[in-house]
Amino acid sequence: MWRMWALASLVGMVLLTGGSGPASAQDKPTTETPAVAPAADEKQEAAAPDKPADEKAAEVTYDIPSDVDLAYSVDNLLLFLMAVLVIFMQAGFALVEVGLNSAKNAVNILFKNTADFCLGVLMFWMVGYALMYPGPEYAGKYFGFHQKDFEAAVSADDIKAGFSTAPGTLRTLHPQADFLFQAAFCATAATIVSGSVAGRLKFSSYLIYTLILTGLVYPIGGFWKWGGGWLGAMGFHDFAGSIVVHACGGFAGLAGAIALGPRIGRYTADGKSKPIPGHNLAYATLGVFVLLIGWYGFNPGSQLAFAGTSNLNLVVTIAVNTTLAGCIGGVVATALSWLVFKKPDLTMCLNGILAGLVGITANCDCVTNKEALIIGGVAGVFVMVAIIALDKLCIDDPVGAFPVHGVCGMWGGIATGFFGTDKVLTTQIIGSIAIPAFSFVVMCVVFFGLKAIGQLRVSKQEEIEGLDIHEHGMPCYGADVA
Amino acid sequence: MWRMWALASLVGMVLLTGGSGPASAQDKPTTETPAVAPAADEKQEAAAPDKPADEKAAEVTYDIPSDVDLAYSVDNLLLFLMAVLVIFMQAGFALVEVGLNSAKNAVNILFKNTADFCLGVLMFWMVGYALMYPGPEYAGKYFGFHQKDFEAAVSADDIKAGFSTAPGTLRTLHPQADFLFQAAFCATAATIVSGSVAGRLKFSSYLIYTLILTGLVYPIGGFWKWGGGWLGAMGFHDFAGSIVVHACGGFAGLAGAIALGPRIGRYTADGKSKPIPGHNLAYATLGVFVLLIGWYGFNPGSQLAFAGTSNLNLVVTIAVNTTLAGCIGGVVATALSWLVFKKPDLTMCLNGILAGLVGITANCDCVTNKEALIIGGVAGVFVMVAIIALDKLCIDDPVGAFPVHGVCGMWGGIATGFFGTDKVLTTQIIGSIAIPAFSFVVMCVVFFGLKAIGQLRVSKQEEIEGLDIHEHGMPCYGADVA
Amino acid sequence: MWRMWALASLVGMVLLTGGSGPASAQDKPTTETPAVAPAADEKQEAAAPDKPADEKAAEVTYDIPSDVDLAYSVDNLLLFLMAVLVIFMQAGFALVEVGLNSAKNAVNILFKNTADFCLGVLMFWMVGYALMYPGPEYAGKYFGFHQKDFEAAVSADDIKAGFSTAPGTLRTLHPQADFLFQAAFCATAATIVSGSVAGRLKFSSYLIYTLILTGLVYPIGGFWKWGGGWLGAMGFHDFAGSIVVHACGGFAGLAGAIALGPRIGRYTADGKSKPIPGHNLAYATLGVFVLLIGWYGFNPGSQLAFAGTSNLNLVVTIAVNTTLAGCIGGVVATALSWLVFKKPDLTMCLNGILAGLVGITANCDCVTNKEALIIGGVAGVFVMVAIIALDKLCIDDPVGAFPVHGVCGMWGGIATGFFGTDKVLTTQIIGSIAIPAFSFVVMCVVFFGLKAIGQLRVSKQEEIEGLDIHEHGMPCYGADVA
Repeated sequence: MWRMWALASLVGMVLLTGGSGPASAQDKPTTETPAVAPAADEKQEAAAPDKPADEKAAEVTYDIPSDVDLAYSVDNLLLFLMAVLVIFMQAGFALVEVGLNSAKNAVNILFKNTADFCLGVLMFWMVGYALMYPGPEYAGKYFGFHQKDFEAAVSADDIKAGFSTAPGTLRTLHPQADFLFQAAFCATAATIVSGSVAGRLKFSSYLIYTLILTGLVYPIGGFWKWGGGWLGAMGFHDFAGSIVVHACGGFAGLAGAIALGPRIGRYTADGKSKPIPGHNLAYATLGVFVLLIGWYGFNPGSQLAFAGTSNLNLVVTIAVNTTLAGCIGGVVATALSWLVFKKPDLTMCLNGILAGLVGITANCDCVTNKEALIIGGVAGVFVMVAIIALDKLCIDDPVGAFPVHGVCGMWGGIATGFFGTDKVLTTQIIGSIAIPAFSFVVMCVVFFGLKAIGQLRVSKQEEIEGLDIHEHGMPCYGADVA
Repeated sequence: MWRMWALASLVGMVLLTGGSGPASAQDKPTTETPAVAPAADEKQEAAAPDKPADEKAAEVTYDIPSDVDLAYSVDNLLLFLMAVLVIFMQAGFALVEVGLNSAKNAVNILFKNTADFCLGVLMFWMVGYALMYPGPEYAGKYFGFHQKDFEAAVSADDIKAGFSTAPGTLRTLHPQADFLFQAAFCATAATIVSGSVAGRLKFSSYLIYTLILTGLVYPIGGFWKWGGGWLGAMGFHDFAGSIVVHACGGFAGLAGAIALGPRIGRYTADGKSKPIPGHNLAYATLGVFVLLIGWYGFNPGSQLAFAGTSNLNLVVTIAVNTTLAGCIGGVVATALSWLVFKKPDLTMCLNGILAGLVGITANCDCVTNKEALIIGGVAGVFVMVAIIALDKLCIDDPVGAFPVHGVCGMWGGIATGFFGTDKVLTTQIIGSIAIPAFSFVVMCVVFFGLKAIGQLRVSKQEEIEGLDIHEHGMPCYGADVA
Repeated sequence: MWRMWALASLVGMVLLTGGSGPASAQDKPTTETPAVAPAADEKQEAAAPDKPADEKAAEVTYDIPSDVDLAYSVDNLLLFLMAVLVIFMQAGFALVEVGLNSAKNAVNILFKNTADFCLGVLMFWMVGYALMYPGPEYAGKYFGFHQKDFEAAVSADDIKAGFSTAPGTLRTLHPQADFLFQAAFCATAATIVSGSVAGRLKFSSYLIYTLILTGLVYPIGGFWKWGGGWLGAMGFHDFAGSIVVHACGGFAGLAGAIALGPRIGRYTADGKSKPIPGHNLAYATLGVFVLLIGWYGFNPGSQLAFAGTSNLNLVVTIAVNTTLAGCIGGVVATALSWLVFKKPDLTMCLNGILAGLVGITANCDCVTNKEALIIGGVAGVFVMVAIIALDKLCIDDPVGAFPVHGVCGMWGGIATGFFGTDKVLTTQIIGSIAIPAFSFVVMCVVFFGLKAIGQLRVSKQEEIEGLDIHEHGMPCYGADVA
């Protein structure tokens, strides 16, 4: 009763002081805070508030950013924003993976997706970056290691040099911006596997896997192409990582799925498939939208330079190619599922969108809109075929990570050879096999090694009752839901 | 067993070819793509590793972006980022609509929201854009069609021309950036309807509706105003689409809701309202926050030019007007619900926020902060009144899409006549009726047409048991949740 | 009944004062936008369609943004985007808090998080900003009040003055951009408390608390440091608000938790802790990812200037420091939970990430990457210790808001004295105590005052059956879920 009076009088006071009172007194701030005084107004160190303003006003000089400064700022600010979008993909992966799995393993999946980001960033900071970008002295090699000083000052000369027109010149990026963007990619590769091994891998083994993938496998494969290693020297083209990121993660996931074997009850003794449905398709759908948003950082951001007409033109073309490929992938996979299963299947649509996005990732910079539609549409077919094929082989990949990222990643790499301007098909095939194969073999060693010492898979009881209770001591959902 | 061997040996072959063979063929990319392109190709300092540094230093020239280049880049980069925010609204709509409906139809709603984005973008690429922006030869007309070359090169002259001070000059945007932004708007208009027809429309009919709205209705209405058609020529003002987008979608939704009739059990035989509560208000709330975030692309992005003081000043004013209108809309609707229902109603608060956002969309560029508060506050009243009125009329709009987007969209269009600087009320009223009426009539034809051939509504059994099982063969939530 | 009238008339008053009073003094911005503005109005080539092109070509002049214009645009556009990221944190807080609480109170928590944003922004617009940034005449003071004209024109001279090299000069920001960014911070401080008081505070009392925190407590504490008050004058450093925002909110939450006492059943009669588990850890995890994303606006955005090499270099360093501190916080808290509880605890990991982020917030601009790792790691220890300590003291803070924001906020403030370049430890300690103490004392008065008049806590029955039904008349989840 009186409560509202309290509120009313409160807001009344507020109105008196804020709404009307000051409004009347409110003559335009003619004493507009001068050059220095805004200091008091703003967040930054309100430096030197004790100096009289007129003393300073005497000899005013200005520090107005030049075109070089501005271009450098725009390049790096955009790269930073793109990195943020890529990091947002972690949430997308978590949602897709948790949604497409059982509720009893939800905490485990969420935890894996959180942990692989935390560990992945730290590993990439410690060793991954040094392996992936060891510098020009390792050009064309298979392996290199040299840690960059992430906090090295960037001189005006460095920045200017980045605008040199010499062939192959790259714009100068601040090492911190560059690290953040690359670390986000590394964490993306890692998190792909989380879905393939869901529901039966020990949590501790997942952490071991994460350290190896983010500290060794991804950076070495990345060096081969983006770090200037042998694949890059050969002319292999993978613009934003269909192969370097997605196929690397997808094949690591396949290794995990094979080493682990299927979840209990996923296949009958005679190899009949008995799908274990996800527990929340709203999460999965939201996750795909979040991934789509993140992809606008992943692909356009991989241009690494944004200021200036030629860079800009490419960046926005990349964005549209990415969008079209994802959309057609979703449409094609939906249509196919409708044809084959007699009903339109939402999970197929979602995987089709992701398939299109993965497929266009390698070549979004060197194909036309129409070619993007072809690449995305074919990816929508491949993901459906691969999901069915995997099922026939009794390989249990709960979220379809291998079909989406492994198969369509390879398709993206190879499609670059078909459609990409000035790209060589054989080179594309070589690169599209080399990195996934490397990832698959190393991760087979790791996963089968863990299996050999009995550390790979949780016990039968734990699996049946759920990893959440046994591994983490807590269910994802409270008993009072619903 | 042997299956794994097959797979293993496959990957082994892959390794052999990938690892050693091609490495010999490795010639350095001496034919490096010119000046800017290498940036595209390489993620890092891999560029031109074979050239000694001093050799390059000899004849260094620099390509430093000029002010024109930079302004063009900033304009287009921001438009791209704004488009990403608008695309994110798709996730917001999906969450709001799925949360405010029954769990048994959740997959169907999620699928509709995913499909309308995929189809909408493709339709807008194929025909919608050509209808909406046919070019100046159709100025002042009712209809036009001319497809732009989305991949046409943008010349330096084109860009410079965009900075001409001639009255009415628009900055030059890259056609790909422009397409992406406009396509996102088109998909937004489409997805509004999804909520109005929830729980009873056939999935296939929703796809048909989507194709018609994104391929015909929205682009033609959009042409009338933004494409230079008769409404634009008349001086009708709709800055970011209260009418062109929201009222268009809202009235299409009303047509659907009327053609379909209410869900079973929504009203008693004698017209008493029996609300069917949503199944997850956490989704709905998250969705509203996502929509709010997306609106920062929707409204400020509609300025279409961001570099330079006058554009910047307007962009940030638009952002604050948008925020204030949404906030006051939420507060007013909450207060009203407390008054009428005796308890503060979260769904009313959420719809109030959206109502304020929709209302300010037409005029956020030409009103003051205080006027934004009035417009948003009145929208908060209107949404509540419209929800109650619709209920009295036994029109079943499960998420209140018509009250929010239809009614408050019209309010936004008309309010522009009251508050907008130099805006004419009668012109605003004409525009605020013409586009919604066009959308309503066409969509009535479509929906009643589908009804006539028995394709509009699912069977009674399907509706009662849920569309998820019958239309898609899968529930949204696993049996083991909770 | 009449209560709502009070609220309604309140809003009416707001509208009146907002709408009429100042509006009169306000000449419409007719002369505002020059040459380019028409671009603003139209979305596409609608411009001047009736003029033959060659007629225009005659006397073409160009308005190409200068370097000053561009730098001003980049600064403000980035600040706007950063504000959007900070506003997105509202969704993150809502998700974390609703996920870590019971389902029966979910609507209440969601509603509180929505309402505090709406009310907080409005309060900050009406009075908060005027208290926080009263201008230089209040430099070094404890209190000041002067409302800025949020819609004042920004002149070219103002902008140029912002690039003066005089010590302490801050770039000129558009008042609307500045307001939006600061308002987002204010709403963040408010929403922290929502978690601490969950499950037992009356909704109306939460609204009263929100008005006081956003209208008085946060702005006054903020003035002390960022507005140029005594703490700023003393040299206290709090870059992005470990103290000003997080500890302010955290200690307000502690006041609430103490005044309320624990939830029924949270502790046994003899002080044994009986945790009440959250009802949805997927929400909580998604919320933490959203908060992480938002933090990239919170910390880098607090630089308030983005164009130019020196600002850019700091912005990206801040982003990496923020990332590293969050990641190590999550890793350390996970490890500790594993050690202490024998199982890795997801909620501990999530709180550890937040703890690291809160800890680095004050000092992300003045420490190295390695120091960021130390600060984040120690925060991961502190949050765990504080959660356990609070439990021993039988203080019920359902989401750990005080451990995360209060304790780790203070740690951030004090750590700045240890690690920050040129920072003084004693000054840091003074500031790190002053603002939290002020917040704690005022909010104790408010919460204990409400308690004294019996308006603080819901009835026992309401608490047991859930606030959703009793306070809002609706459950969060439909009966047909699962």
